[in-house]
Amino acid sequence: MARIICCGLGPGDPDLISVRADREVRAASHVAYFRKKGRPGQARRIVEGMLRPDVREYPMEYPVTTELAVDSAEYARLLADFYDAWADRLARLVQECDLVVLCEGDPFFYGSFMHLYARLQGRVAIDVVAGIPGMAGCWSAIGEPIALGNDVMTVLMGTLPEAELEQRVGTSDAVVIMKTGRNLAKIRRALAAAGRLDQAWLVERGSMPDQRVARLKDVDTADCPYFAIVLVHGGGSRQAAAE
Amino acid sequence: MARIICCGLGPGDPDLISVRADREVRAASHVAYFRKKGRPGQARRIVEGMLRPDVREYPMEYPVTTELAVDSAEYARLLADFYDAWADRLARLVQECDLVVLCEGDPFFYGSFMHLYARLQGRVAIDVVAGIPGMAGCWSAIGEPIALGNDVMTVLMGTLPEAELEQRVGTSDAVVIMKTGRNLAKIRRALAAAGRLDQAWLVERGSMPDQRVARLKDVDTADCPYFAIVLVHGGGSRQAAAE
Repeated sequence: MARIICCGLGPGDPDLISVRADREVRAASHVAYFRKKGRPGQARRIVEGMLRPDVREYPMEYPVTTELAVDSAEYARLLADFYDAWADRLARLVQECDLVVLCEGDPFFYGSFMHLYARLQGRVAIDVVAGIPGMAGCWSAIGEPIALGNDVMTVLMGTLPEAELEQRVGTSDAVVIMKTGRNLAKIRRALAAAGRLDQAWLVERGSMPDQRVARLKDVDTADCPYFAIVLVHGGGSRQAAAE
Repeated sequence: MARIICCGLGPGDPDLISVRADREVRAASHVAYFRKKGRPGQARRIVEGMLRPDVREYPMEYPVTTELAVDSAEYARLLADFYDAWADRLARLVQECDLVVLCEGDPFFYGSFMHLYARLQGRVAIDVVAGIPGMAGCWSAIGEPIALGNDVMTVLMGTLPEAELEQRVGTSDAVVIMKTGRNLAKIRRALAAAGRLDQAWLVERGSMPDQRVARLKDVDTADCPYFAIVLVHGGGSRQAAAE
């Protein structure tokens, strides 16, 4: 029976795709992937040069967002309709043959495909192939262990309220902050208030040839894409509980 | 110039090794890896059947631990001597040819090789190849997204004090708890106190043929290896800050 194979592609370097995902992508007759309208799409970029010449591609283009605030009810409805329509379309497509869905990072770790995965439960067989999360590509670019020993590591979204960011950064050893972009000034204030700004890095396109690694304190907060990641390293100095 | 190539091998399934690490491992003339005395070693097991017939192997065997408590000062000194000696030995070896170090998961994410990496800074060129963290193999085995949307995810060690585990579990959406083993009864009490025990999973050898996935509440706490991982899924329902 045909199925959907959702392949995590890792942080961006095609050499960091898993052996299995590499094999599935190269053999695929049908591939689908998310992208913004008019953009190539990050997942599709990672597999450039790997696809069969006769592959059929299904770019799933997000609805245009310039007219609506991304946190408005109308936009949420537009997005739900978009996911519903693509879930139906993929379910029909996969009646005939396997379909590979291309996903950045690891699909089960904050992956967009999960919106379709939830809608396709019980309708279609789906294999999910784990990938290296984008954050691991970013901390590898810095070349220091993100966490060691008994470190507590927290993964946060830059969309959280400033006071909560400050509190969580201040009580964690290692910190990963995603969804930066226009939240970067707020993130920087929260890190400074927690006394961690001097240790923070901003990494963009980690593992790719054009990766950018900078001390967060040196970055212009107006110049940060949404998908750049802020990292603070744990020091591995936390003691275990006495038992 | 020769160098050390530290290859993250992912959670255990050889099909989840990255294309690059797969290539480095198969081409290696010299490989080193940690293991417990008398055990094959998890990193070495992952690459079974992949090594060159003429490969030279350097098992780095942890000092025997039965006589000393693992949190004693004597054991810490024994371990430091062990890392010092192997750092020196690897530095000598790599004068002649490249050496591949085999590591489970992702080397920069709580990886044991970091003890050698720190000691070898400035002495030897070291490439670290990112891998899929063990926890990603575990949450993939369950087949649900570990974190979504604005979820806060916390990675904790089961060695932390019970009150702290309870507090952190209660204030996180998604939770990963490593270093379980003899800490499992404490972890279970902390999850129950935080009202999250019913949502918790225990996963052992995630991604491997003999993987074990169970509801934590159904597990005998005496029957848990140190490297099994406890997972609680985030629900993706946290709202972003209004701006």
